[in-house]
Amino acid sequence: MYTLYSMQNSGNCYKLRLAMAQLGVRFQIRDVDILKGESRSIEFLKINPNGKVPTLVLPDGRPITESDAALYYLAEGTPLLPVGRFARAEALQWMFFEQYSHEPYIAVARYWLTIAPDGRETKKDCFPEWNERGHHALRVMERQLCVRDFFADGQYSIADIALYAYTHMADEGGFDLSGYPAINAWLERVRSQPGHVDIAWRP
Amino acid sequence: MYTLYSMQNSGNCYKLRLAMAQLGVRFQIRDVDILKGESRSIEFLKINPNGKVPTLVLPDGRPITESDAALYYLAEGTPLLPVGRFARAEALQWMFFEQYSHEPYIAVARYWLTIAPDGRETKKDCFPEWNERGHHALRVMERQLCVRDFFADGQYSIADIALYAYTHMADEGGFDLSGYPAINAWLERVRSQPGHVDIAWRP
Repeated sequence: MYTLYSMQNSGNCYKLRLAMAQLGVRFQIRDVDILKGESRSIEFLKINPNGKVPTLVLPDGRPITESDAALYYLAEGTPLLPVGRFARAEALQWMFFEQYSHEPYIAVARYWLTIAPDGRETKKDCFPEWNERGHHALRVMERQLCVRDFFADGQYSIADIALYAYTHMADEGGFDLSGYPAINAWLERVRSQPGHVDIAWRP
Repeated sequence: MYTLYSMQNSGNCYKLRLAMAQLGVRFQIRDVDILKGESRSIEFLKINPNGKVPTLVLPDGRPITESDAALYYLAEGTPLLPVGRFARAEALQWMFFEQYSHEPYIAVARYWLTIAPDGRETKKDCFPEWNERGHHALRVMERQLCVRDFFADGQYSIADIALYAYTHMADEGGFDLSGYPAINAWLERVRSQPGHVDIAWRP
């Protein structure tokens, strides 16, 4: 059985719970509360020296860190990874976009507004830049979703799971999605996929 | 022939020049000077709506954005991508690490110190955090390189190319690498790979 080191309200961790639910992969959860410093414990750093969740441990004990790398691992050979060299690169392109141009603004703003609001004041100078860059990422997504139903190869894949995680709760980071009709229609398409589970779900 | 939209002194663009040199892929360069706003021109945004270099255009005209996604595309079916599902995930894990935990601190500090020093003053409050987080990334790399010669599957791969790009010029971002012997030995191993070219090389 797989073991997922996870914090329940982390979107990066949710990606893997959602993918494993849809793929029918059996797994157990080990809760790691990053607010209590549990991702920096000596025990956890032995599993992931970078001190981050999620970390996925395979049945043979080998760990995979980085949510989108673990998503790719889980998806290989399943309908969640598009077929073909270009389509795979396209999925990865949107996953790297998510980690570089989307998550650092939309997820991080949510973190300081909703997950750790006590520290919000110390980050108040960052919010204008996060807001501007987060909306830039949303505009890039909107433009793509005006001409495509899903991000890679026109079909639901791990690229959609990666981008859904923090987009569907962008309001918790102060992002109003009402001006993005194509994103809202896509969020509904993702929610209607077979086996979809919400962020509160646990196996 | 491939076309690479590239800025010569960008480490992200260098990754693709290095990989294509080593793979013997023929390509032409279209220089894009981001300091002159050329990555935000209407013409360029048609190719990459996110407005970033590198962008790799395939011989059939399809673009791939995000340096590490384009690296993966180029490496498929070559010795630069490890064989096996776990090894591929391991390569991707280090590439996502590079884009999330390394580049935003080490490359961004270099950008403001070396590429666009006129704006350095406006970013001066960010340097302490970039320095701390960049050194954290370097410590994670050092720990891995104490037990492995290369990042994924013990062999030279696109994971090494991705991490070499900005690590080998980390000094330009104010990072002193003298305390990282394993990283320095790895930099030498990367430089000694067949077909290695430096950042100034062009086809």
